Amino acid sequence: MPGAVSRAVGRLERVRGLLDAHELDAILFSRGAYKRWLAGFVLQRGEESTSDYAGTLLVTRERRLLLADKRYTEQAAVEAPDWQLIATDGKIELELAALWPTLGISRCGAEAKVVSHGDWQAIGVAAPGVELVALDGALAELREVKDEAEQDAIARACSLTDACFAHLLTTVRPGLTEKEIAWQIEDWFRANGAESLAFDSLVLVGERASMPHGRPSDAAVEVGKVLLMDFGCQVDGYRSDMTRTLFIGEPDDASRRLYRLVADAQAAAFKRCAVGISGIAVDAAAREMIAAAGFGEAFTHGLGHGIGLETHEAPSLKLHPGPLRAGMTFTLEPGIYLPGRIGIRIEDDILLGEAGPRYLTTSPRDVIVI
Amino acid sequence: MPGAVSRAVGRLERVRGLLDAHELDAILFSRGAYKRWLAGFVLQRGEESTSDYAGTLLVTRERRLLLADKRYTEQAAVEAPDWQLIATDGKIELELAALWPTLGISRCGAEAKVVSHGDWQAIGVAAPGVELVALDGALAELREVKDEAEQDAIARACSLTDACFAHLLTTVRPGLTEKEIAWQIEDWFRANGAESLAFDSLVLVGERASMPHGRPSDAAVEVGKVLLMDFGCQVDGYRSDMTRTLFIGEPDDASRRLYRLVADAQAAAFKRCAVGISGIAVDAAAREMIAAAGFGEAFTHGLGHGIGLETHEAPSLKLHPGPLRAGMTFTLEPGIYLPGRIGIRIEDDILLGEAGPRYLTTSPRDVIVI
Repeated sequence: MPGAVSRAVGRLERVRGLLDAHELDAILFSRGAYKRWLAGFVLQRGEESTSDYAGTLLVTRERRLLLADKRYTEQAAVEAPDWQLIATDGKIELELAALWPTLGISRCGAEAKVVSHGDWQAIGVAAPGVELVALDGALAELREVKDEAEQDAIARACSLTDACFAHLLTTVRPGLTEKEIAWQIEDWFRANGAESLAFDSLVLVGERASMPHGRPSDAAVEVGKVLLMDFGCQVDGYRSDMTRTLFIGEPDDASRRLYRLVADAQAAAFKRCAVGISGIAVDAAAREMIAAAGFGEAFTHGLGHGIGLETHEAPSLKLHPGPLRAGMTFTLEPGIYLPGRIGIRIEDDILLGEAGPRYLTTSPRDVIVI
Repeated sequence: MPGAVSRAVGRLERVRGLLDAHELDAILFSRGAYKRWLAGFVLQRGEESTSDYAGTLLVTRERRLLLADKRYTEQAAVEAPDWQLIATDGKIELELAALWPTLGISRCGAEAKVVSHGDWQAIGVAAPGVELVALDGALAELREVKDEAEQDAIARACSLTDACFAHLLTTVRPGLTEKEIAWQIEDWFRANGAESLAFDSLVLVGERASMPHGRPSDAAVEVGKVLLMDFGCQVDGYRSDMTRTLFIGEPDDASRRLYRLVADAQAAAFKRCAVGISGIAVDAAAREMIAAAGFGEAFTHGLGHGIGLETHEAPSLKLHPGPLRAGMTFTLEPGIYLPGRIGIRIEDDILLGEAGPRYLTTSPRDVIVI
């Protein structure tokens, strides 16, 4: 496992490789995940607004600069000592316009899917001679393959998530509300070493589970209904994301068949995962099985997404023409949603190795009856 | 206090007033706060990405549409029954290109500071005959003045925050770490009726308090140091945001003077608050007092920001040419940061009424020694 310093250098070299490939003089990084990945500079949730520019990275062939407004300069100096710190006054477009000529920059890559249109325009107006070039896809690929330290952090987040699920199996009972269970999840993670949740937990009872992104409410767990829990945590900046759907009391045959269909679809996708295969093919493996059973319309989202410093990152399987590469980590999460009736989703985190995929979350995927 | 229905109608009318004022056929809303404010459609943290378009509002003179991708349609139908629901397949630019001609739209207002440059461009490319017009400032003003129900929700969030602080005064002691105290705050809020934190709490000991946005660490509370806590919660979607700086053990005279200077600067700003005055003048009242004492450079941020559905919203006092209006809610948070030595900030939430300002957070602002 490489040390932190050699890892950081390797990442910087890969970033600089994009300068030649895309004929650029520099790359501007706005997304919080890059600030942590490349410079070790960590922002809190809610501090990653692009108009705020609480720490923007600028990488050229020779230099690496961290532009931070005065609220963040002290933190940046501690966390990213190898980066040249430039204290800004909040107007990033003016700071950049002053910097470009001193660094000989006329073409700069940037994240068009992150930088707001207003900021992009302002940067252009302040320096008409400098062209910003959208580089989103190429940048996203930089973080797709995880090194060993990253894989290890994700695996630890996944192990904690399995342990949290095992705990929930001992506490969930009829009468508890969705909100109460969501709070149990958060409380358990904090008490057991997670930095934070990976995202606000989804805890949904019965027909409410048919909302793939519904919020926990005061609805209570009831016998005869499902309980869907989609949750994860963060460890050393890296995240987990797992969903299990429990039956409260014995399910009827139709519900049991539906559950098995989702589980089988996930297993089929898992089996299809291999280095060199496209994400699209993996998505199709699950989707075709669900469609063949007549529920194609009820599987309303993609099969999975990359996971790492962000809960949702590249690759999105259904959009990924491939090839998948060793070291990628992503979710497999087929679901069937019948509005007003039921929702079932099974989601696990996968590490793709040279020899094939491995489940990082290992909680039981069989029918579980509470 | 107007009911929910008449409130929603009033807001829609104010939005439609902007159509004439800016010669627009429609306005597109991307920011999560508007989705809640205008349509009652609530997204979780992390679901507000603009490229995701998990529920975009489109208001014309005659119609109100909610474009949601399939993961959110069921939730949208429940939460925003008065809005015409359009299920999207994720490519918002294509959905919009199909919609524009059917609705007779050729000029549409949008949030240039929120919509990413990539999305803005894609919308334009998909429908070259339609002009998107940046409308950020005018939209932000819509939510600046809070109605009675909003004021009430903010006041309840502030009261909970005061009660949490009173609780902390009984639990904080040397040896507790910043992270442990941050967790106590979150735990207390959830157990006592808050929906969630307003933002990740800042808990900083001693010289670490000089980082205005530092993260809680494993550093422990120590006698002879300050403890800065910046925290708030969310109630019915509305937020609070308060900072107190405690002394652990008797402070030396210099630290005590510094604290009094910050408190006096806040009091001066509070006194300056009035309907018709500019935010800039209020900011200056605090800033001039701190500068006169020789610490102007150490007050590195604005005096305050609007607070409501978002923790930071309009107006930003130091940028606000005014006039301030009755019903505005904002923070007053002067601070002095001496890197490597100490940081002191006192932050309260204010409601500006016709008769003058009122503190919504009322925790003691005197020197507090633990």
